[in-house]
Amino acid sequence: MAVYTQLSAETLSDLISHYDVGELVSAKGIAEGISNSNWLVETTTSRFILTMYERRIDIADLPFFLGLLDHLSAKGLPVPRTIHDTSGAASRMIDGKAVALIEFLPGVSIDNPTPSQAHNVGAVLARLHLAADDYPGRRTNDLGPDTSLHVLEQCGAEALARIDAELPEMLPMARSIAADWPKDLPRSVIHSDLFPDNVLMLGDEVSGLIDFYFACHDMTAYDLAVTHAAWSFDHDGRSFRSDIGSALIGGYQSVRALSVAERAAMPILARGACMRFISSRTQDWIDTPTDALVTRKDPMDFVRRLQFYQSNGAELFA
Amino acid sequence: MAVYTQLSAETLSDLISHYDVGELVSAKGIAEGISNSNWLVETTTSRFILTMYERRIDIADLPFFLGLLDHLSAKGLPVPRTIHDTSGAASRMIDGKAVALIEFLPGVSIDNPTPSQAHNVGAVLARLHLAADDYPGRRTNDLGPDTSLHVLEQCGAEALARIDAELPEMLPMARSIAADWPKDLPRSVIHSDLFPDNVLMLGDEVSGLIDFYFACHDMTAYDLAVTHAAWSFDHDGRSFRSDIGSALIGGYQSVRALSVAERAAMPILARGACMRFISSRTQDWIDTPTDALVTRKDPMDFVRRLQFYQSNGAELFA
Repeated sequence: MAVYTQLSAETLSDLISHYDVGELVSAKGIAEGISNSNWLVETTTSRFILTMYERRIDIADLPFFLGLLDHLSAKGLPVPRTIHDTSGAASRMIDGKAVALIEFLPGVSIDNPTPSQAHNVGAVLARLHLAADDYPGRRTNDLGPDTSLHVLEQCGAEALARIDAELPEMLPMARSIAADWPKDLPRSVIHSDLFPDNVLMLGDEVSGLIDFYFACHDMTAYDLAVTHAAWSFDHDGRSFRSDIGSALIGGYQSVRALSVAERAAMPILARGACMRFISSRTQDWIDTPTDALVTRKDPMDFVRRLQFYQSNGAELFA
Repeated sequence: MAVYTQLSAETLSDLISHYDVGELVSAKGIAEGISNSNWLVETTTSRFILTMYERRIDIADLPFFLGLLDHLSAKGLPVPRTIHDTSGAASRMIDGKAVALIEFLPGVSIDNPTPSQAHNVGAVLARLHLAADDYPGRRTNDLGPDTSLHVLEQCGAEALARIDAELPEMLPMARSIAADWPKDLPRSVIHSDLFPDNVLMLGDEVSGLIDFYFACHDMTAYDLAVTHAAWSFDHDGRSFRSDIGSALIGGYQSVRALSVAERAAMPILARGACMRFISSRTQDWIDTPTDALVTRKDPMDFVRRLQFYQSNGAELFA
């Protein structure tokens, strides 16, 4: 959520000259993206998002991510295209860091979705899963239930208890989720981080899906479970909005019906989705000094969601 | 240099509905401005900068700042107009904080200016001083040499020495600058912070002057001295670029000739300009924890500039 690197106007102009997009008119560092620097760049022909990959992202994965944008965009999904430079490359290097120029899409991220908006998000997620099915790139999910368990075990019960007295209860829960994790459900490329921040909307319509830097091959129903957990609760996870949850699943199934096995797996997939964010937020919580200016996200927000799914998942997804 | 406040799409849409600018299409928090939050906002009709005034800025001064933008813009200066809401107000309140919608101007900030660019910056600064002369608003400079001296005395020689062994030498220097500060030079509204960050350029042309939140009534030659100190050195103040300094003053005088008294005062005005930034940076340095993620600006960058002016000011401005 920050611009980590300063790029001079001279460096930006030089970069832009390697693309067939006209001349630089304006560039503003924008407070968007996790662990990347982003600029909203205007040229004499159009507007773009320039992303510099700072950390967390393995440069070897960039062709997977950038090719996926092009693949989905070519299939009519509201996904920004990668702009290729005049030599055809999807990314370039500046001072040892990879950068990519990406299409600018209109729209704003919604804080309090309506059922109609949630329906359309569900529908576009299903379209994404269908459109990505023949994408040739491959990337495994390195944030699955085994990783969540490992992260929490590395933190240890004592450190967890210092954050919240209820957090150590997640250790046996993470073990049981990892042990019972489904294996034979339909797979495709999934977004795996489709929070409202990563969806641009114009009115009720989805105008953009962005930030594919957690995309990977995994179970499509798991992606729906992540999206359900990300959209159907108030921020702190205390209150479930059943109208949003139902609209999201209804929208998804209006495009791609869930199989009986997928429906049956939804409760554990939803708990696993929560555990994935509990573990990463717990790690960030421990790694971030309390006086740092970065806002730490409270892992308990997703503990509450997990507890909700634990109590209500069976009937919710029946 | 950060977005301090999160504004939901719903809040932004509601805000935009109070202006005659169409409907919200996009809003990106931008990493710009000191102590303000800023968004680049796109509507169905145009683009704007939305500024939320977080701190440091006295809300009582807002009519002065926003009216000044309109005054200068109406006189043909490349200054962004304030967009007034449908009731005619230049600012509105959101959650107890003032916000203003401001025209978006193209251009990028230059790191390494050419003499031709510096000439045009000097010329536009002189045009600003002439155009602002009949602006009816009034605001005194609260960052003059007495303030610089007071700030450094409050820090104390010990704290200064902990930053740099040479910094305590600034105390007697600040006393002598405050004592000898000129009083009877021509005055107008001055920008007083015209660093390259606050100038947008398209090629050699100045396309925008921004961030007027230090503007005040003071000596116009002092504003030229601030701009000279801000533009004519490498970042750390170690090397003076005489071609840039000459071009800046030449550009200024191509529009408004300096009087004999102003030329004679330039060396002390330049030292006073440096002292103003030495004092504020010193205070920020002491107030900012070393492990904060905010980059502290080294006060020594301007100590070196001051030392340069001390040694060379007389012949430089002769």
